[in-house]
Amino acid sequence: MPNTVTLTAAILSLGTEITSGVIQDTHGRFLASELSAMGVQVKRIWLMQDEPEVIPAVRTLIQKHGLVLITGGLGPTSDDLTREAISEAAGISLVFDNALWEELKNRYGLSKAEANRKQAMVPEGFQVLPNANGTAPGIWGKVDSCLIAALPGPPRELEPLFQHLLRPVLVEQLQLNTQAETEVSCFLIPEAMLEDACLKTGRNVPEVQWRTRFQAHRISLYLVGSTSQQREEFIDKLQHEFGEALVRRGDNEAAALLLETLKQAEVQLASVESCTGGMIGALITNIPGSSEGYWGGFITYDNKAKQSAVGVGHSTLETSGAVSEPAVLEMAEGTLEKSTADVSVAVSGIAGPSGGTMEKPVGTVWIAVSRRTKQRTIHSRAFHFTFGSRRDIVRRRAAVAALLLAEIMVRKPESLDMVQYWHYS
Amino acid sequence: MPNTVTLTAAILSLGTEITSGVIQDTHGRFLASELSAMGVQVKRIWLMQDEPEVIPAVRTLIQKHGLVLITGGLGPTSDDLTREAISEAAGISLVFDNALWEELKNRYGLSKAEANRKQAMVPEGFQVLPNANGTAPGIWGKVDSCLIAALPGPPRELEPLFQHLLRPVLVEQLQLNTQAETEVSCFLIPEAMLEDACLKTGRNVPEVQWRTRFQAHRISLYLVGSTSQQREEFIDKLQHEFGEALVRRGDNEAAALLLETLKQAEVQLASVESCTGGMIGALITNIPGSSEGYWGGFITYDNKAKQSAVGVGHSTLETSGAVSEPAVLEMAEGTLEKSTADVSVAVSGIAGPSGGTMEKPVGTVWIAVSRRTKQRTIHSRAFHFTFGSRRDIVRRRAAVAALLLAEIMVRKPESLDMVQYWHYS
Repeated sequence: MPNTVTLTAAILSLGTEITSGVIQDTHGRFLASELSAMGVQVKRIWLMQDEPEVIPAVRTLIQKHGLVLITGGLGPTSDDLTREAISEAAGISLVFDNALWEELKNRYGLSKAEANRKQAMVPEGFQVLPNANGTAPGIWGKVDSCLIAALPGPPRELEPLFQHLLRPVLVEQLQLNTQAETEVSCFLIPEAMLEDACLKTGRNVPEVQWRTRFQAHRISLYLVGSTSQQREEFIDKLQHEFGEALVRRGDNEAAALLLETLKQAEVQLASVESCTGGMIGALITNIPGSSEGYWGGFITYDNKAKQSAVGVGHSTLETSGAVSEPAVLEMAEGTLEKSTADVSVAVSGIAGPSGGTMEKPVGTVWIAVSRRTKQRTIHSRAFHFTFGSRRDIVRRRAAVAALLLAEIMVRKPESLDMVQYWHYS
Repeated sequence: MPNTVTLTAAILSLGTEITSGVIQDTHGRFLASELSAMGVQVKRIWLMQDEPEVIPAVRTLIQKHGLVLITGGLGPTSDDLTREAISEAAGISLVFDNALWEELKNRYGLSKAEANRKQAMVPEGFQVLPNANGTAPGIWGKVDSCLIAALPGPPRELEPLFQHLLRPVLVEQLQLNTQAETEVSCFLIPEAMLEDACLKTGRNVPEVQWRTRFQAHRISLYLVGSTSQQREEFIDKLQHEFGEALVRRGDNEAAALLLETLKQAEVQLASVESCTGGMIGALITNIPGSSEGYWGGFITYDNKAKQSAVGVGHSTLETSGAVSEPAVLEMAEGTLEKSTADVSVAVSGIAGPSGGTMEKPVGTVWIAVSRRTKQRTIHSRAFHFTFGSRRDIVRRRAAVAALLLAEIMVRKPESLDMVQYWHYS
């Protein structure tokens, strides 16, 4: 990464539940991802049991790296060895911190504080990072040219402590060139395709670096380095490649983008779902306060439900099938008739693994959106989710496509025609 | 673990995307979990970049452990160093494996095989583990008293290779006492509560060991050691503690248990969801072939939807509120009237973060189940999901409770009264 000191770091995550496979360590990746974005190269992530072997491991790491982050092992029991390991490995003594001890007494009363007395011990010369969400504080200090920091194990304690207290310490002490970062939310685009496009776009602006994070319903793309204008141009190029609706600035879920648009337009949406089976409703209602923009919907999984709940014609199902343009148009229309919603979105597709044909292979999904205006507006589109045609992937991609289509129907209906140029597989 | 050799192991997972935080390493946990169940104690999981520093790391690990598993770094490029690291660390040479070379040529043709020539090199004396799902085979061999195995990085290559080829090698070479394992699916029970109950139950049968795996909608509990009868008694005790419906033998999702019951009884279910907003439908329809047992449903998120879609009375909502016994009873009844389904399940609750009151705090969920029989059967129950009252957790637990209640309504309606004794928070 340009303009940054090449500083290498190691992460040591402690806990017997981790090495026995009972729980998945997630701190390693969290910290590695944050440090990478700050221009620090993480060379190794070591997961170990809390046991005396931790001492030589810490010694090895502080000899080899400019930064060592340790998570876990800061609790009050004899198994918690992080303080001792740092002091032994670095050859410094543990000292009793009066201020910490007063705080422990205030928080727990004397008798309970006694049981946690160990938590008031700190390697000499180390600073305390107060833990607002738990009992064990973090600590940091320098040993020769290595900065060592230890953070408590529970994620809801570690993450805020890192973000709010340790990050500024690292930036100052290690003289990191903190670069502004631009976050982008990418929908429907397979990871390999996004990486290819970034590689291609990046050739003209090598100063812009990027990394991706794979999420359940989108990929987050982070751009760092160079100027904010160059990062914006990078995003423009990706939007040009994939379609404006699929590459959105900021940290956004598709359901949240839709709900925001619905609230601003003061309209309510109703959904009618076949292959997604309720997933669209579940994604929208996961957001607090969603009833303002969401009426509810129909899950018309069996064809009998398509007929009786939203009035799809028997002949439509006979002639065109449940996965067809006429079927989703009738589903969307019927939903406006059977509800008080202003906008409806309808989905019917073949999620697999069976049910595909030559004409309609697995991954074929029809979506329609309709709006109750003076002149009824309705739009439909077929999608072909051929990439990784696993049932759950097809369903998730169908749900995201439906959320985006509904959002465009309300925010910018004139660009609905552009949907045919979306580039997603 | 009793009756097993105390053998310690280390796992080394290689890849720059891992140490930079771009991807989460999951091999470490997978292999640690499998090895623990086989009675092998994993002491450390090291995640490192593919670089020459891997050589001293491998040397350290084979000196300290009886088993070293390495993942990744077996590809054809110069970055892929695993073969070289093993041969250098162990002081043995790499030899050209003619059989492997023939296979590469057969698979790719000569010119492409040439580019992958490196993959035909094997440390002297090592055995090849053929990879049915990719190009890089696994390898294993012994160096002094340490067994070393290297597996390819992609999960869909590594997991079958471990299960089908490496596991039998480990059992034979390390003389592992492979114990039968009994799997249990636990619903609604918070992890800490389940651990406490296992500790308590385990006191009387110390030969039975257990480990848990946290999943999105349940906790999987694995019992190993002792006799199958003692493991069954262990499960009986947990069922007695929490309720038979919440502790189920085998590897089961709640939606799959319900769907199986619906198919056997040849009935169809309809759902009507308020706080879960479609999640119940989404869980059921994630299972292929679910339309046989699932008609579809209604997402009655806004109160207007409760009235117009399934006919809940305006006065019911005014007098008792949407989260109440009368409301869910009317939702369940109305759903049978508006559909051709035989059974209905209705959910209405306060998922938070706002909307809670003294009388109905966040986590209060009413569920009703109804069956279209000669004499209509209907049952309702209030749940209080007070543990971890985060919106998504309340919603997930409400959905699971509804799936289980519907399953009991069809399979064993006489035990619906036992639901009040469920012990889940």
